[in-house]
Amino acid sequence: MGLTDDLAAALGDRVLTDPDVLETYRRDEADLCPAGVPLAVVRPRSTADVVQVVRIAGGYGVPIVPQGARTGLAGGANALDGCVVLSMTAMTDILEIDPVNRLAVVQPGVVNSAISAAVAEHGLTYPPDPGSWESSTIGGNVSTDAGGMCCVKYGVTSRYVLGLEVVLADGEVLRTGRRTAKGVAGYDLTKLFVGSEGTLGVITEITLGLRPVPGVSRGLAAIFPTTAAAGAAVTSIVAGGHTPSLLELLDRTHLAAIEAYRPQGLPTDAAALLLAAVDTADHELEGIAALCRAAGATEVHVATDEAETVGLLAARRLAHPAMERLGKLIIDDVAVPVSRLAELLDGIDRIAAEHAVTIGVVGHAGDGNMHPNIVVTEDNVPACQAAFDEIMALGLALGGTCSGEHGVGLLKRDWLARELGPVGVRVHHAIKAALDPRGLLNPGKVIPAP
Amino acid sequence: MGLTDDLAAALGDRVLTDPDVLETYRRDEADLCPAGVPLAVVRPRSTADVVQVVRIAGGYGVPIVPQGARTGLAGGANALDGCVVLSMTAMTDILEIDPVNRLAVVQPGVVNSAISAAVAEHGLTYPPDPGSWESSTIGGNVSTDAGGMCCVKYGVTSRYVLGLEVVLADGEVLRTGRRTAKGVAGYDLTKLFVGSEGTLGVITEITLGLRPVPGVSRGLAAIFPTTAAAGAAVTSIVAGGHTPSLLELLDRTHLAAIEAYRPQGLPTDAAALLLAAVDTADHELEGIAALCRAAGATEVHVATDEAETVGLLAARRLAHPAMERLGKLIIDDVAVPVSRLAELLDGIDRIAAEHAVTIGVVGHAGDGNMHPNIVVTEDNVPACQAAFDEIMALGLALGGTCSGEHGVGLLKRDWLARELGPVGVRVHHAIKAALDPRGLLNPGKVIPAP
Repeated sequence: MGLTDDLAAALGDRVLTDPDVLETYRRDEADLCPAGVPLAVVRPRSTADVVQVVRIAGGYGVPIVPQGARTGLAGGANALDGCVVLSMTAMTDILEIDPVNRLAVVQPGVVNSAISAAVAEHGLTYPPDPGSWESSTIGGNVSTDAGGMCCVKYGVTSRYVLGLEVVLADGEVLRTGRRTAKGVAGYDLTKLFVGSEGTLGVITEITLGLRPVPGVSRGLAAIFPTTAAAGAAVTSIVAGGHTPSLLELLDRTHLAAIEAYRPQGLPTDAAALLLAAVDTADHELEGIAALCRAAGATEVHVATDEAETVGLLAARRLAHPAMERLGKLIIDDVAVPVSRLAELLDGIDRIAAEHAVTIGVVGHAGDGNMHPNIVVTEDNVPACQAAFDEIMALGLALGGTCSGEHGVGLLKRDWLARELGPVGVRVHHAIKAALDPRGLLNPGKVIPAP
Repeated sequence: MGLTDDLAAALGDRVLTDPDVLETYRRDEADLCPAGVPLAVVRPRSTADVVQVVRIAGGYGVPIVPQGARTGLAGGANALDGCVVLSMTAMTDILEIDPVNRLAVVQPGVVNSAISAAVAEHGLTYPPDPGSWESSTIGGNVSTDAGGMCCVKYGVTSRYVLGLEVVLADGEVLRTGRRTAKGVAGYDLTKLFVGSEGTLGVITEITLGLRPVPGVSRGLAAIFPTTAAAGAAVTSIVAGGHTPSLLELLDRTHLAAIEAYRPQGLPTDAAALLLAAVDTADHELEGIAALCRAAGATEVHVATDEAETVGLLAARRLAHPAMERLGKLIIDDVAVPVSRLAELLDGIDRIAAEHAVTIGVVGHAGDGNMHPNIVVTEDNVPACQAAFDEIMALGLALGGTCSGEHGVGLLKRDWLARELGPVGVRVHHAIKAALDPRGLLNPGKVIPAP
């Protein structure tokens, strides 16, 4: 008997060991991060299944790597050689929707958009909408504290996680948080697990807070001759006290890629397109339009109704698939104070030119959270990596963070160390050791080397 | 040389040892919690001062108890015999207000209302408004994750804490968080310290997120013949998808106490008064008024303008001082799912009758977060404590939490243990041990006995 036999004896056909199948569970969407080959993949259907896997693998001292839909962009779900992958995608039950208390209790394998659809029937919404919302799981969203386009007004995943059930490294089941609108009893363990990328425990149930569906949204598109002008417009919108429900920027590279992929009539000669929407009073949209013009927009098109707004935003959703057709990508994720956005955009242009690499920039401009997407070709990997590092350094120099919403995974451990400093790294190690003393939960991810 | 000599040598007149002075630093406002006598009180003026105190006291193995304005209601700031009290009230600088990025950087001793006043000049607001907002410090607010009346719409303190500077138990200085709107790099250490009541580190600087000032608010007052009817109105308002900016309930005991203290023309024959306000469209207030009538309100008075609204809400601010005139109070704090509010209110009535004690109920009804205030007389302490315990048990039985916003301190350690369960308690101990292995930071608070 060995580990895979023990797993199979306990969990039957939920254990996968076919080498061809194992191959498909090796990695997430971070193209350049290393990925090992797991010894086995287990697809649990219940918390009790997860407890069994953690206990059995723990008995052999074998690491566990939890996975959702593997849409992550930092290698956080990548397998290690000889590990057990715990694929949570079969735990897909929406256990409860409580419209009066505005909450839902879900298993981690439920896809983000399925939650949105289910709660919409009750006049409620779960706001966080990462680009992967039609395929990524809520467990993955929680583990990375995923963001999205709504977050500029409504906040990221962590704001909506009221409570968790977590299987700890020793197989004990922890319940955190609550079902109430408020609660401050004890340490905020819920938020500690949110964004911890599977390094502290395996999330098996999530209690999500919900909001009433917002009002009808109406949007605009503004065309800018320089990215810096677009950045300045964003700064003036935020400084002007506006609360847009969406404020997105696409640069020339993305506009061209989208037009080449699925023509939308986008202005490929513009340096940047800014998309804004409001779900409150229309006069707020007029105010935003005026600020765009004042910042140098050459054209501002205000949608006349919700249908036209949806059309404007559809182009934004094409940015990622369109860019993927250009080659392998390093999809970066950096957030700076909104006041520094123009400097970030200018700096990225300069870095791209210096290294002669293509970097398309798209993202959640209203949050200062941009995705510089570096196009990797067969012979430019070192230049791309140098550009990536310079963007990270620029982001930190501008008072920013090395990840606005994608997480650290394997991709950014060194940058996390730089951002945290030695005391912060030491505290991370202390907390990891307190909860996973043997280092068996997603080892090597997030935590920088000591 | 001893500890006080070492402290005086390092910190001069910031060290207080006069017994009469020490006596005034023994306790917060939790009347019935035990409090020791400190060996010394230190009033640091800088992070460097705090580091010195932590290192010197640590050298003697002497515990440190951080204090703000001691307006806490759970004994979390109470001194231990022979401890060093670290009173943060002299660190009162607002270090920075950044209106573009909507943030402020403050020292922990700044009073909540001083922050509101300072940022209002920039068209911004710091929403959390605990009852003590004119006297409590932001450091205390962060340490307890304080709530208030705005929180039903705008959330509690933790939503606004972007980053912290914290002196750890070994005297190292940790910086957590960021100045960006979004960021997911590493564990959420910021939220771990928020609400930890000084048991994990001493907060020396706080970066606060701010919001644009909301629109003009307009309110209503609704009179109910039973508390259960008022509770049902609250449930129907929340279930109806409304987002009031305030939704407060006062029971008959509070109405009578306020009228006896400073007459406001409140209906002392009513079982409950519900106050609601909206800062969006007036039609939302009309909708709330209609739901109050449908739930059985005998009278609904809608304010005609903001001035009248302010008048309605002024009565609410008198609830605490008015009740204090009735005697010593056990000010309780329980939150339940909003759907269970009527059951909570009925249950508290029953508990008061069974134990023949006076319990006034006031609180943030829209959050399900109520304050049952038990009036303690010379000869009814056991009855009050029994009533307190029954209210806690009722709150948990209704799916609630033992603290919605006041924290655990000394008052609720046993109830926290019951709420967390044994695995949760174990994780609390593990985190405490990871960050404060010698147990010198506010020992005996929050964490339940193993």
